[in-house]
Amino acid sequence: MAVIDLNALAEGNRRALAKAITLVESKLDSHREQAQHMLEQLLPKTGNSIRIGITGIPGVGKSTFIETFGLYLIAQGKKVAVLAVDPSSPLEGGSILGDKTRMEMLSRESNAFIRPSPSEGALGGVAQKTRETMLLCEAAGYDVILVETVGVGQSEYEVAGMVDFFMVLMLPNAGDELQGIKKGIMELADALVINKADGDSINLAQQTCRHYKNAMNLLRHNSFWTPQVLSCSAQLKQGIDAVWGMISNFHIDATNNGAFANKRTQQNKEWMQKLITELLARKLNQNPQVRELKPLLEQKVIKGETTPLLAAQRLIELL
Amino acid sequence: MAVIDLNALAEGNRRALAKAITLVESKLDSHREQAQHMLEQLLPKTGNSIRIGITGIPGVGKSTFIETFGLYLIAQGKKVAVLAVDPSSPLEGGSILGDKTRMEMLSRESNAFIRPSPSEGALGGVAQKTRETMLLCEAAGYDVILVETVGVGQSEYEVAGMVDFFMVLMLPNAGDELQGIKKGIMELADALVINKADGDSINLAQQTCRHYKNAMNLLRHNSFWTPQVLSCSAQLKQGIDAVWGMISNFHIDATNNGAFANKRTQQNKEWMQKLITELLARKLNQNPQVRELKPLLEQKVIKGETTPLLAAQRLIELL
Repeated sequence: MAVIDLNALAEGNRRALAKAITLVESKLDSHREQAQHMLEQLLPKTGNSIRIGITGIPGVGKSTFIETFGLYLIAQGKKVAVLAVDPSSPLEGGSILGDKTRMEMLSRESNAFIRPSPSEGALGGVAQKTRETMLLCEAAGYDVILVETVGVGQSEYEVAGMVDFFMVLMLPNAGDELQGIKKGIMELADALVINKADGDSINLAQQTCRHYKNAMNLLRHNSFWTPQVLSCSAQLKQGIDAVWGMISNFHIDATNNGAFANKRTQQNKEWMQKLITELLARKLNQNPQVRELKPLLEQKVIKGETTPLLAAQRLIELL
Repeated sequence: MAVIDLNALAEGNRRALAKAITLVESKLDSHREQAQHMLEQLLPKTGNSIRIGITGIPGVGKSTFIETFGLYLIAQGKKVAVLAVDPSSPLEGGSILGDKTRMEMLSRESNAFIRPSPSEGALGGVAQKTRETMLLCEAAGYDVILVETVGVGQSEYEVAGMVDFFMVLMLPNAGDELQGIKKGIMELADALVINKADGDSINLAQQTCRHYKNAMNLLRHNSFWTPQVLSCSAQLKQGIDAVWGMISNFHIDATNNGAFANKRTQQNKEWMQKLITELLARKLNQNPQVRELKPLLEQKVIKGETTPLLAAQRLIELL
């Protein structure tokens, strides 16, 4: 059984934090149980951060932005954790943040903690592990948690569902229709940030800003917050203060009007519901009678001997 | 208990078919049971149709297309059923096919059967009812089943998951980026048909064809079938034979290489899985202990007294 020093973790000890995350990511059943117990103990110490999701297509400069933004925040006295959500297997070439050389300056800071994406997760997938790691980082005193996504597959949806503020990085390129970003993602965004607004691209970045301000006005908002469009240059460290100013304003307003707490409540409820669905499916599929009967019923459905509904009902009755 | 004459239905009696559909759509538990029993008896008589899904934004001319296409098919000796899937409530202004005046000529044909969208469904929603209605139409000898969707919300995904061939109607308008059609829909399409290719729009329709042929080439295909792009004028009854020729070719090729049967098998398996998930959730939520404990556990999660995973596990243990 792994021994985690929870007091050291709560005092910000990075080794204790790293060990706790490794426990949370473990595939052993005994570790999983211990991890849940540990999380329950730490819960009173969690919740005091702002969780910021960052996505964008490859090439938009996510690593550079996160390094520059992270260093800026540390200069403001913040403790910054950087997590990644990458549901694709490293073998398929998807893995991000595989090493810390990507954010070399940031990784040397004592007030920064960088953790690559969990390679896989059982229940709830990689997202569950990242949610748990966020809690551990909060218990360890990190004020700002940056959650990076690869921008492919389902990862943006998963990250948007676990953060307080969701930001999409874009390139200065007004004409390029949505830059391959899925339309649904735009509706999740609390801000679009046009990166690489430097050199020859400054005018183009301004055009892009206007373009997306217009586009964002067409989307329906269900929140007190109107999504913002900003530009910056992570490379030249320009416009970074405005990005943080925007997020700070959001944080203050959302806290005061209750939207911040409401969103976290809603996220927790939805996540619990998702885990219930997964656990139910697992319970059903582990039932020996179901395992025996399910392929037979599927065959009957395929051969047209029974309907999908009757087959489903017969399986459920076994539980 | 409703009495349905299954022999009359199998002989193509439209009153028997209409009564059977009404039974399938009933909300009474006893009717539901009877409906499943009836479907199981009829299953050997089903499957001998081609199911064609048709979507497109409002204004694209879906009704006119379906009327012209349906009349053409009847002239070829086919029996044609037209069903609709509209998950939105009629009260919200969504309902399509509310009356038959929309397809006046077609509705007068003895070899046509037009049925509006079920207003609601319990398990599996409106899609389940439409799937069952398709089976009844097949048992009644309909060769071609046209399933129309309103083109909003989830309805296209649901229809694409229940048909053999999925077709998106579009307007001649090459520049207009995807015409508000969700990108995911393009990937589901077996064909794009540019309607209203008439009068001043003929050149524009040709441009649109080229535009979408290029666009379709960018999408990955996992099937033997390369999605086709055609143009037609439902109003002037032009190009309709080419649309049917394309679908007939698909039907022959897909039948010969096994893709037709494989797709239906896959659809049935996925649908059965979806119903299992829904039935499980229902079973859990009907458990009195779960009903009592679930809100309490949700509160504990919200207050940060337990984790979503532990709460979910405690609920599942009650089953």
